Amino acid sequence: MKRPKIVVLGAGYGGLMTVTRLQKQLGSNDADIVLVNKNDYHYETTWLHEASAGTLHHDRVRYDVKDVIDRSKVDFVQATALKVDHQAKKVILDNGELDYDYLVVALGGASETFGIQGLDKYAFSIVNVNAARQIREHIEYQFATYKAEEVKNPNRLTIVVGGAGFTGIEFLGELGNRIPELCKEYDIDQKLVRVICVEAAPSALPGFDPELVKYAMANLEKKGIEFKIGTAIKEATPEGIIVAKGENETEEFKAETVIWAAGVRGNPIIEASEFENMRGRVKVEPDLRAPGLSDVFVIGDCSLVINEEINRPYPPTAQIAMQQGELVARNIARLVKGNTHLESFTFDNKGTVCSLGDDDAIGVVFGKKVTGTKASFMKKMIDNRALYMIGGVPLTVKKGKFNIF
Amino acid sequence: MKRPKIVVLGAGYGGLMTVTRLQKQLGSNDADIVLVNKNDYHYETTWLHEASAGTLHHDRVRYDVKDVIDRSKVDFVQATALKVDHQAKKVILDNGELDYDYLVVALGGASETFGIQGLDKYAFSIVNVNAARQIREHIEYQFATYKAEEVKNPNRLTIVVGGAGFTGIEFLGELGNRIPELCKEYDIDQKLVRVICVEAAPSALPGFDPELVKYAMANLEKKGIEFKIGTAIKEATPEGIIVAKGENETEEFKAETVIWAAGVRGNPIIEASEFENMRGRVKVEPDLRAPGLSDVFVIGDCSLVINEEINRPYPPTAQIAMQQGELVARNIARLVKGNTHLESFTFDNKGTVCSLGDDDAIGVVFGKKVTGTKASFMKKMIDNRALYMIGGVPLTVKKGKFNIF
Repeated sequence: MKRPKIVVLGAGYGGLMTVTRLQKQLGSNDADIVLVNKNDYHYETTWLHEASAGTLHHDRVRYDVKDVIDRSKVDFVQATALKVDHQAKKVILDNGELDYDYLVVALGGASETFGIQGLDKYAFSIVNVNAARQIREHIEYQFATYKAEEVKNPNRLTIVVGGAGFTGIEFLGELGNRIPELCKEYDIDQKLVRVICVEAAPSALPGFDPELVKYAMANLEKKGIEFKIGTAIKEATPEGIIVAKGENETEEFKAETVIWAAGVRGNPIIEASEFENMRGRVKVEPDLRAPGLSDVFVIGDCSLVINEEINRPYPPTAQIAMQQGELVARNIARLVKGNTHLESFTFDNKGTVCSLGDDDAIGVVFGKKVTGTKASFMKKMIDNRALYMIGGVPLTVKKGKFNIF
Repeated sequence: MKRPKIVVLGAGYGGLMTVTRLQKQLGSNDADIVLVNKNDYHYETTWLHEASAGTLHHDRVRYDVKDVIDRSKVDFVQATALKVDHQAKKVILDNGELDYDYLVVALGGASETFGIQGLDKYAFSIVNVNAARQIREHIEYQFATYKAEEVKNPNRLTIVVGGAGFTGIEFLGELGNRIPELCKEYDIDQKLVRVICVEAAPSALPGFDPELVKYAMANLEKKGIEFKIGTAIKEATPEGIIVAKGENETEEFKAETVIWAAGVRGNPIIEASEFENMRGRVKVEPDLRAPGLSDVFVIGDCSLVINEEINRPYPPTAQIAMQQGELVARNIARLVKGNTHLESFTFDNKGTVCSLGDDDAIGVVFGKKVTGTKASFMKKMIDNRALYMIGGVPLTVKKGKFNIF
């Protein structure tokens, strides 16, 4: 009898969790497992704000996929997945095709600009290692050029961050620590530098405890960050951004660096493959299969799971993607073994910590509010836990964060 | 009786040599000494190619002026000197004026583009720390952007160096070592990178021993450098450069980075102050005074001294500037002490070593040809000697090059 073929698209948190669990739960003769990923490395999406600010080298936020997969059980294919052909049960890659018996779509998200003009052209997004390196170098090049040019363009020293959500705030925390270093490196007076955060919602970090939000904003303001809350970006231009001011007026913030950190949607493959979706995300069944498809699971940023308590989707996080990966591995193992009774997914929210730089954070962990160095310590433990869950002790030792006070 | 006031413009090799010798030769009551410099630091002009390539941090190529001057004898003024008013015996600064009894103009050189269209706008020149940092960051930003952009612009990975003279060749040597590092940093295949050196003269390193030139070119070619010798740049454009090809044809080299390293002229103050000059350089009297001016000495890149043997000017180097500084200090000390019989300058050429990266070099030292690690060692000793001459053992220990094999 032919072994069933399991194809996992994406080596992010969800995909790697699926593969590392499957390789434990299935023997070599039970199934063929194929992992497809654009790069030969995994990167920590939740650490990219550090690589983008230049506070952590990008090699610290990635590791080789081969370091965590069991090559005797899992084949690795480096390719970009373009489309799923549900009828033919195959995946179209940029360099070939792969058929599957079971498919896991774990391809992560993409930046969502909500149709705001110019954002895709003039703003950077913290979406992967390539983008993070470019953002880091863009900012540094602006500082270097400002110092070298005869006619100074002060907008080179202005950075606009669009969005005071999780990514925006964590990036601002790193920038707050990085700007003084950059000023020293390029002999620039720090008073000339502006970092402006623009957020359309009536509060930073929507959904967070207001007391913690207040703490975060106060500490970031101390580091020189300016907040424009309740301010929507209308347009990005080559010179900066235009925001709405009152009913009919607009205001311009000139900046040579604009980072858009306010929206995530699912991977383009979801729409290209005609899954039922909302902004590229598939509202999955309780067992994490795509509606109407018995052989396709969707997890991570491409999936949408409703938080019944508030009747809104859970935000896409590494935590939920990893829990989904664990469940999908168990469910596929059941299917492979002929058991069609699948488990349902319930999210076990262990808490959320938002960093404010290397030395400060806010969060709620196991229901308790934490701030400052204690929260920062817990954030590092959360980061290390993700490494441990996927790569065990060796990976944690190799890539973990142990710069603890 | 009023103490005579000695003003030294520029804290480069010549200026600092003058001041550090004057502060030894004169007592506090003999004269007032004022040193004027744009920055509060001295930089090693002859090391800037390393900072530009990113192989040596710019803080390694500079030190505080205050570390080498005797503050009890020398006042330091941070300012840009704009013009000398010979009649009124004063110097116009960007932030004031200074009168003088004796003036030393030691302001260094500026880039000379020989009227080639677009070079001033589209090419970088390795002229100071600010420019070096910008070049380093520009190159890195091109690599980062190439990797991040969806539609790849291969010209981001092409660097054109205009000029295979001393600076051009030394910069190419550093680039040869830096490119593999950049490719690793940004996950770029080194085969995609091009470094092209364009030189109008019929040979690289004109004036150097042909055997040494051959050695240098062969070793740089091994590191991937392409040479276009006997090829004149006609124009620099936003896309690269256009060179002459044959009689009437032209050829374009597309490159996002163009470094112009082929010409030096004197500081603009020379022309602004209506000194007799050729390309901003003053053909000085044997005692290093400007023609017709008994109280103004000109040294370093702003001065022009004829090599009688070949009836051509000595190229402007750190070695000649420092020897001039020593002589000017002695001559001014004589004048201050009422002795009007001044010494004449003769250049004592101890040799020249041209580096080809951290690990290779060519040169002639005390009349002997040297190559490879031996030459590279001598180059580092020459660099250390400049530190020692100006700042003694403490500065040499602090800033010297001791990465010896």
